[in-house]
Amino acid sequence: MKSDKVSEQTTKRLSIYLRCLNELAAAGQVSVSSEACAKRFGLNSAQIRKDLANFGEFGHRGVGYNVSALREHLIRILGLDRQHSVGIIGAGRLGTALADYYRVLDSNFAVAALFDNDKDKIGKKVGDIEIFDIKNFAAVAKRDNIEVAVIAVPAGEAQATIEIIDKTGISAVMNFAPVRLRASAHIKLKSVDMTTTLESLSYFLANDSQ
Amino acid sequence: MKSDKVSEQTTKRLSIYLRCLNELAAAGQVSVSSEACAKRFGLNSAQIRKDLANFGEFGHRGVGYNVSALREHLIRILGLDRQHSVGIIGAGRLGTALADYYRVLDSNFAVAALFDNDKDKIGKKVGDIEIFDIKNFAAVAKRDNIEVAVIAVPAGEAQATIEIIDKTGISAVMNFAPVRLRASAHIKLKSVDMTTTLESLSYFLANDSQ
Repeated sequence: MKSDKVSEQTTKRLSIYLRCLNELAAAGQVSVSSEACAKRFGLNSAQIRKDLANFGEFGHRGVGYNVSALREHLIRILGLDRQHSVGIIGAGRLGTALADYYRVLDSNFAVAALFDNDKDKIGKKVGDIEIFDIKNFAAVAKRDNIEVAVIAVPAGEAQATIEIIDKTGISAVMNFAPVRLRASAHIKLKSVDMTTTLESLSYFLANDSQ
Repeated sequence: MKSDKVSEQTTKRLSIYLRCLNELAAAGQVSVSSEACAKRFGLNSAQIRKDLANFGEFGHRGVGYNVSALREHLIRILGLDRQHSVGIIGAGRLGTALADYYRVLDSNFAVAALFDNDKDKIGKKVGDIEIFDIKNFAAVAKRDNIEVAVIAVPAGEAQATIEIIDKTGISAVMNFAPVRLRASAHIKLKSVDMTTTLESLSYFLANDSQ
């Protein structure tokens, strides 16, 4: 697998292809051409062929891809053939909404624990997920084999939070706090900023209507 | 205002600067230099000066920016000096979590209505926000002056949803469904895909540990 040559954008597209294949498999479809797949899901067929070619020969000329086989391949390539344990830091509205969201999401990401520094929240549960004291993050992360940390704290606390995560050896972090974070080079940090996304829509609305 | 020359990335950074200024204002700070702001929030000081220069002369050599004045300017530039009405389509886990999230977010985006096609949900409320029949989307959107539509439906229903939105003249759409959508040129479409973000972290974990 030429994993070192695969860009982040390619990885994201593989994830989108997997979702397309999931839908096709659920609909009972056995094979699909890159053209049909592109048309149905609004993708680019040449891009699909190019992306998949990074990982081997999956298509058959005139027949297309076998939906089930390609789906299995993508699951393995994306590391989705096993469960990942997730810890969410910040048990406020966003953190608990995310815990709820991931809990019902049919995915390989299972929220193992929530963390907060608010004594009123520590020890309580969201569904069946306990809220732990952030002071015990390293111990709980180790016990529950947490691989992905999700930051859902206020902007002003996010940098201190990633520093706590950094000390544990966790290398995958998803940040929902609307602030840019500095992290060690070994950390893969992805940011999802819902507020700046809304505000850039607001900018568009303000300048569109002039 | 040279709004037509301002890139999407710049708009996003303006939103981040505004959040920094909000924190500084809350802490009672009167002025800030681009260097201090960059250092505190992990930004680039030259970039800050360049971005702000698009909109006028805000800084004073040796003194820096007046926090309150710059904050007011950014609020106006971003169109955040007035309320925007938001409609969320999809009253499942994600849609209701988002309604909850935006409701407590101290922002200019107020969720006016939820929409679904599930008869068991229609007529119910999430907090004080009613769930309407998606069939009445155009009428409710007009009545409540909805400017931003949020798509929180399953992937397979997202394209049909944006086509419903498209017919109403709403021009700002935020998509949470993990699928790429085709929309008219007049629609500003922003996608937030939490699943592909998680899955690209999974890819990183799978290939990091080899």
